[in-house]
Amino acid sequence: MEISNRESAIAGRAARALAAVGPIMRFLMQARDLGHPDACDFLAGNPLELASQEYVAAVQRAIQPDSPAYFRYGPPWQPAVAAVTAALAGRLGLELVPEDVFLTRGASSGLVLLLRILLDPGDEVVMMSPPWFFYEAVVLAESAEPVKVPLTPGTFDLDLPAIERAITPRTRAMIVNTPHNPSGRIYPEDQLRGLAEILERASAQHHRRIYLLSDEAYARILFDGRAMVTPARFYPATFVLHSYSKTLLAPSQRAGYLAMSPAMPEREQLRRALMLGSISAGATPDTAMQHAMPELERQIIDVAAVERRRDRMVVAMRDQGYAVESPEAGFYLFPRSPIADGLEFCGWLDERHVYTLPGEAFERPGYFRISLTATDEMVERALPVLADAIRSFSPAAS
Amino acid sequence: MEISNRESAIAGRAARALAAVGPIMRFLMQARDLGHPDACDFLAGNPLELASQEYVAAVQRAIQPDSPAYFRYGPPWQPAVAAVTAALAGRLGLELVPEDVFLTRGASSGLVLLLRILLDPGDEVVMMSPPWFFYEAVVLAESAEPVKVPLTPGTFDLDLPAIERAITPRTRAMIVNTPHNPSGRIYPEDQLRGLAEILERASAQHHRRIYLLSDEAYARILFDGRAMVTPARFYPATFVLHSYSKTLLAPSQRAGYLAMSPAMPEREQLRRALMLGSISAGATPDTAMQHAMPELERQIIDVAAVERRRDRMVVAMRDQGYAVESPEAGFYLFPRSPIADGLEFCGWLDERHVYTLPGEAFERPGYFRISLTATDEMVERALPVLADAIRSFSPAAS
Repeated sequence: MEISNRESAIAGRAARALAAVGPIMRFLMQARDLGHPDACDFLAGNPLELASQEYVAAVQRAIQPDSPAYFRYGPPWQPAVAAVTAALAGRLGLELVPEDVFLTRGASSGLVLLLRILLDPGDEVVMMSPPWFFYEAVVLAESAEPVKVPLTPGTFDLDLPAIERAITPRTRAMIVNTPHNPSGRIYPEDQLRGLAEILERASAQHHRRIYLLSDEAYARILFDGRAMVTPARFYPATFVLHSYSKTLLAPSQRAGYLAMSPAMPEREQLRRALMLGSISAGATPDTAMQHAMPELERQIIDVAAVERRRDRMVVAMRDQGYAVESPEAGFYLFPRSPIADGLEFCGWLDERHVYTLPGEAFERPGYFRISLTATDEMVERALPVLADAIRSFSPAAS
Repeated sequence: MEISNRESAIAGRAARALAAVGPIMRFLMQARDLGHPDACDFLAGNPLELASQEYVAAVQRAIQPDSPAYFRYGPPWQPAVAAVTAALAGRLGLELVPEDVFLTRGASSGLVLLLRILLDPGDEVVMMSPPWFFYEAVVLAESAEPVKVPLTPGTFDLDLPAIERAITPRTRAMIVNTPHNPSGRIYPEDQLRGLAEILERASAQHHRRIYLLSDEAYARILFDGRAMVTPARFYPATFVLHSYSKTLLAPSQRAGYLAMSPAMPEREQLRRALMLGSISAGATPDTAMQHAMPELERQIIDVAAVERRRDRMVVAMRDQGYAVESPEAGFYLFPRSPIADGLEFCGWLDERHVYTLPGEAFERPGYFRISLTATDEMVERALPVLADAIRSFSPAAS
């Protein structure tokens, strides 16, 4: 094997990961006057109102030790694991046991943990496009290869024939994100059953199990009374990834979990690897977050308020002439941009203190993303600006 | 490249990492009656007394948000970075800038972050033996190769000629642990200068920079008025790794930092990779721990009490006939076992509720390790048992 990083300060894989996130980091870190009194911050799924005192109090209580052993190195706090297992099993309609549930620092931490125990260098990971910002980078960081499959244009459905064509003898895992960011699509049962058939067939054909990593970070931000459907119900080799970053909107206090389907093949070996990996990769949440978890599991942001903002904006923007779907779940609107160049369009909005992300950040030029975690005031301030924008960029105006 | 994990549920690298930690995990997780009223817990550097209310209060205050942005995704909290930078620079006699200091979840989290950005598959990492329990596993988990060099028998000094012989064109990094666990050795200036010369020479010879990762987790647990000496003063390509797990004895609330030497080559590229890596690998501490850091940096456990326990045990055990060095720093005594088989010896102690770890857990049969984080009561209860032990196992008694 040649030494790939002889000329560089950093590893080849790290350089590839850096290159992969370069564009999105530039979008996110662009100079913007977020402190301006008129600023409308639709950039990311970030809190724009003070965290609830209920949340703060739960963590404050959980940092108070009840024994000398409280802050020891040790296995995860079993009452938290038990609480999370029961809650997740109930929500998803799965029969789960605590031995298959691992506390993590959010969905991303669980994802990195899984990639580390499943992938060897050169393995391939199939993922959807648009992907979450960091999927590609975290796969490259494991010396593995991301293989992107576009979601169906317009509907953002799983393109099952394209997924099947993307699988090779090197495919070791597939990442699916449902509800999907940025489209807000909850993949329906028929698509997930179809996906399971493809993965079963391909695993058998290549004599190599393809694991499905289901990023369900938005699984509790559901609209219109919809229900979450997890692929774990249809494909036994599924890992479910959950984060509290969305349900509690306090993403810088990391907490979440991953769970194996009860029918996961070779569970014992995977359990051992997940336990060791959690220690050595530092995937386990801080003790305070673990002890807060049973209470945090019962807390959730005001989803009805997010849904109201969705409705307000979808109705108003459609009136203004935007093509915009009404998302089924999650934090985002993903309207079409009036012009193909989303960068130019979002730049125009930026100048007027309405901060959004261009479709180029999601491998979908011609769109832009609006986070519904903005305040109601920001929504009302932004709507006239969005109306001006579509008028300014419409063919008649030019 | 052949597909190495076709027949296994987990990756080849994960299987190797699991195998590497198998023995120590078995030692650590052996059934022991730690709840027995006579239990003397000398197993690990773990808290055995209730955490200080000062510590708890600092974290409780730090979880209280002062703005809607408090719990956002975002860069590390700059006042914490500034406080840590000033404190570390003062303690080590280095000129540091905040741009070269990265908040981590302890030394292990910083170590994994560095391995991810420095190593490609097949790269070699030189480490000392005895090593920390997880060095080998975390290197194997990056598809890289650990290369172990024994410390000098008896004194646990750096064996510089052996280190030089262990370096190959594939060597990318070396891990040094000072103060050293389990020997308590602080490597002196002359040895670190010698090490720096070797690493400079080898880097030039192979046209490849060898990075030094200096695990300084015990750097503030110093005895006899001794001072810490960091290799960063002598070798520019050094990363200093610090953890609060020892200075605060609350290891399950993760916090620490890593710092580059001011003379680090190619700092700009490394900064970018460390920033991205911190995000994607989840190396950054929770917001509460970040906000507590300026205050935690001023807190420290009662090191004088640890030193008193060291003196009490060293004097008493020497009287009893044990060969035991008085450690310069850290949490541990590392006496010789009266018999070559440390497992048998520690098993005998286990039966009498005196829980220690055998030298076999540290690649040094014929020794055993005692953690001085035990309480004074445990020390007094254990000393007569240790006296019985050496009598029972001495040649005259058999």
